[in-house]
This record gives sequence, C-alpha cells and structure tokens, in this order.
Amino acid sequence: MAQIINGNDMAQDIRKNLRNELLQFVAAGHREPHLTAIIVGEDPASKTYVEKKVLACKEIGISSKTIVLPKSTTQEELQRLIEQENKNENVNGILVQLPVPEHIDERTICNAISADKDVDGFNEINIGRLALDMECIVPATPLGVKTMLQRSNIQTFGRNVVVVGRSKNVSLPLAIILHSDGKHAAKGMDATVTICHRNTPAKELAKHCRQADILVVAVGKPGLITKDMVKPGACVIDVGISRIQDEAGKFKLVGDVDFDEVRQVAGHITPVPGGVGPMTVAMLMQNTILAAKKQISNRTD
Amino acid sequence: MAQIINGNDMAQDIRKNLRNELLQFVAAGHREPHLTAIIVGEDPASKTYVEKKVLACKEIGISSKTIVLPKSTTQEELQRLIEQENKNENVNGILVQLPVPEHIDERTICNAISADKDVDGFNEINIGRLALDMECIVPATPLGVKTMLQRSNIQTFGRNVVVVGRSKNVSLPLAIILHSDGKHAAKGMDATVTICHRNTPAKELAKHCRQADILVVAVGKPGLITKDMVKPGACVIDVGISRIQDEAGKFKLVGDVDFDEVRQVAGHITPVPGGVGPMTVAMLMQNTILAAKKQISNRTD
Repeated sequence: MAQIINGNDMAQDIRKNLRNELLQFVAAGHREPHLTAIIVGEDPASKTYVEKKVLACKEIGISSKTIVLPKSTTQEELQRLIEQENKNENVNGILVQLPVPEHIDERTICNAISADKDVDGFNEINIGRLALDMECIVPATPLGVKTMLQRSNIQTFGRNVVVVGRSKNVSLPLAIILHSDGKHAAKGMDATVTICHRNTPAKELAKHCRQADILVVAVGKPGLITKDMVKPGACVIDVGISRIQDEAGKFKLVGDVDFDEVRQVAGHITPVPGGVGPMTVAMLMQNTILAAKKQISNRTD
Repeated sequence: MAQIINGNDMAQDIRKNLRNELLQFVAAGHREPHLTAIIVGEDPASKTYVEKKVLACKEIGISSKTIVLPKSTTQEELQRLIEQENKNENVNGILVQLPVPEHIDERTICNAISADKDVDGFNEINIGRLALDMECIVPATPLGVKTMLQRSNIQTFGRNVVVVGRSKNVSLPLAIILHSDGKHAAKGMDATVTICHRNTPAKELAKHCRQADILVVAVGKPGLITKDMVKPGACVIDVGISRIQDEAGKFKLVGDVDFDEVRQVAGHITPVPGGVGPMTVAMLMQNTILAAKKQISNRTD
C-alpha cells in the first residue's frame, strides 16, 4: 500500500519555517513583505483561492491587500492598475487571479506584471529564465511538486518521469525543472522526462505511464489514471482538481488519479484534496518573501 | 533502406524562396535587411560558421557586416557594442557567434541583444515566448528541424518523439515545439515528447529510442545511436556534428548516428554533413527577414 504524501502537513511545516524567516527579516529592520492580489469579476472559485492566499499571508506575517475589480474592467484599466503596483516600492508581489474575463488577454496581463514582483512566475521573462536554468521566480505549483519530491526523498536523477498535461502554468515548467541539470543555478532534477497530453493516443499514454518511476498528472479529468497504468512502486503526484457530485449527490473534490485503486500499487501517492493544493499556497508565500529579499538586494547593489 | 532527407537541396530551395521574398520586400520600397555578426576571439570554427552565414546573406540579398573583436575584449565592451547595434535602426538582426571567451558570460550577452533583433532566438524573452506558444524568433536549428519534418511530410501529431540531449539552443526549444499545441500562435507539433540526456541510463536510453517514431539526436557523441536503438521505419534526425579522424588519418564530419547501419532500418534519415547544418543557416536568413519585417510593422503600429 502506497505511502501517502501529506501536503497539508508538509505545507504547514513550510509555513512555520517561512514565519520564522519573516520574523528574522523584520527583526533585521525590513518592512514586512506586501502582496497585492487582484481579482476581476465574481468567480466564486477565484474568490476562495484568493481568500486562502490572504489567510496564509496573515498567518506568516506577510501584509496583503485584495483588489476586486468589476467584470466590466477593461484590459487597459487592469494594466494601469498593475503599472501602479509595479511602481509602488511598498508592494513586493503582485498576482492576478486567473482566469480573467474573456475580453482581457491573460497573456498580456501576465507579462504586464514586472518580472521581479511576478510571484506567480507566469511572466514571459520568468518562464524564459526557468527554461534557461537561470535564477527566477518559479510558478508555485511546479515548485510545490519539486519540494514534495525532495521532502519525500524521491530520487529523480536518471529516473523516468512522465508528466501528463502540457499547461504553461504547471506541466511545462515541471517538465523543464524535472529534466534539467542539477548543477545549474536553478537546480534541475536530472530525470528523463516524457510529456503526454490530449493528443497522446490512450494506448500510448498507458504505455508511457507504466514506464514511469514518477508520474505527475495535471489534466483535470477525474479517473484518468487507473491502477493498470501505474508501475508498482512508482510515485504518483496528482495535480488535477475537479469538483464532482458523488452518488449521494454530495459535491467533492477529486484529482485525476483513481486514488483508492492506484494506492494499492504505487509506492507514494498524493491525495486530493490535501496533496499538491496546500503546497501551491505555501510556495506562493515563499515566492513573495524571496521577491521582497531580492528587491532589497537589487536596490543595495 | 531509409529515404535520405537532403538538407542541402531543401536549404537551397528555401534560400531561393527567401531571395524572391526579399526582392519583393525591396521592390515595395524597403531597405534590404541588415545582419550584424560579432565574433570575439580567433576560434577557426566560429570564423567558418560566420563566413557561411555571410555568404548566405550575400546570395539572398541581405546586407551584413562582421565585427571581429580581439579575445581580450571585456564583457562591458561587448555589451556596449551590442547596445549600439540595438539602437541602430539600420540593423535588423544581431548575432554573437558562440562560444564567447570564458571571461565573458554567454547568457548575459544573449540577453543583451534586443529581443526583436535576436535572430538566433537565444534571448530569455524569445525562449520564454517560445515556451508560452507566443509568436517569437525561434532558434535556427530547432526551426530547421521543424521545417525538415514538415517538408518531408513526417507526421508528428500523437506520435512518439524522443529528443536526445538537453541543450538550451537546440534540444529544449525542439522539445517545446514538438510537444506543444498546433492550434496556438507558434504552431506546435502535438507529439508526445521524451527528453533523454547524459543522466539517462544507457539501457533506458535504448528503450526510449526504440519507441520513437521520430528520433532527434543533438549530443555531439559520434556513434551514440546504433541500429538496435532505432524502431524500423522511424525518422532519424541527426543534429550532432563532430570532427573525427578516420583510419587513414583524414578528418571528416560525423553526426551522433551510426549512419550506415541505422539507414538500413530507419524510414527517413538526415546525413551529416548535408542534413540539419545547411537548414540552420537558411533558417537564420529567414529569421533575419522576419525580424526586419516585424520591426517595420512595429514602427508603423
């Protein structure tokens, strides 16, 4: 039976460490870091996500503000607001909760956030630096997965990793981190990496997955990964999250992996909820503190 | 017996098309595009590469200049020169022939070239945009491989591709292009992609390669890919290039693939020399014309 990687416990431990790091930072005479979160529109899921992030900020001692803009906000208005926050020396991190309404170009907005305040790591410059093994702000979910693997002592060097999904915020950064050189600034993980996606034929997907020592799934399709697709002893990281109704009509959150079945063959497995999700929030906090420190050292240079 | 993909013929055809495109461009009242090539030091291979590029410019009608700097040039001097060329409206493309001497940081130099004149596509912004499926300048060698596959009618959608190597100038951009979505601005190729590298165990490398419908090798290790590692009918693209001495003491250029053996099982194969190499030069020319056109349309916007 697989060992369950408890994301809640791990994230709590990280938040505790971050809290201590922040106390030292403030004791050294620095203002507490500040995160600005922006929501456009009334999406309830977006609100919940931002509330979780704000709560984590409070617990750690990061100051934050949430700016809620009406759905009718134009792209130019949003860009002007980001520009203000970019210029504001008291703001260390900026995030725009995705998705934005359809009339706003998400990519333009991600690129509008100054690279050194881009705590989500979605700016083209941060993604470029990640691809080039340079120091950068790494997107929170991929960084969370990397941290989970490291803290669980899962070896990646020379191992076969399969990443299912090709999203730009999760799967691609993960594939970059997992395959790249551990000796470079960004400390890659030296695995052999296969990227599967919607156009990988089902039979091929199963074959690739069965060869994986580490299987990371980030698709959003409940039940996609079944027991027969998992190599005995493999580490299975489930990044998917979907809200489904069970037989009794009750809503619940599930991942992409058939957890009850797969845990019988896997060596390690992350649950949903309580797996990657809390790690993402913890990594966002880590990025915000990192950004604040980096901004200070850039000013002193 | 594999069909040989003739890179010389293909590149010549592309250069002919580019020549016509350029004639139309000049006939429309535009100045011919200008490429500045910079070499630091006396590396004979670098000189040869730049000479080939300058020759291709001449043939197509791109104006060019080569600036040869002494090996003792400081990083700051090189950056100042790049800055001048960035500002010069008569210069459309800038390339610094790699490698640069050890006292100069290659990455800083690649990032110093303005993204819109970065015809090598090595700037962090261009790599970031490539990773994000945005329009950008794509590095010439990966673009050459993409073009070779397309022009040879090799299907990539849903196929297994193995890329051996993880260089930032060739393998990683290729893996990005090959796995990404064909419906996006950058027109990915929708393949399932596996990235193998020096830390992939030999046995695993062989296994992955044997599953590849398309095998791209960019390592620089003569004889790395042998017949038993290739799936019958696969398309084998050899990006490697090494100068070795044969039994008679004569120097010759070879790729990473055991050509004579592998051609017996492969469906398509590229030779070395005369495969990817000439395509790289042709794609650099294409990038230079593209950059010039883009700069004009940006000025008119």
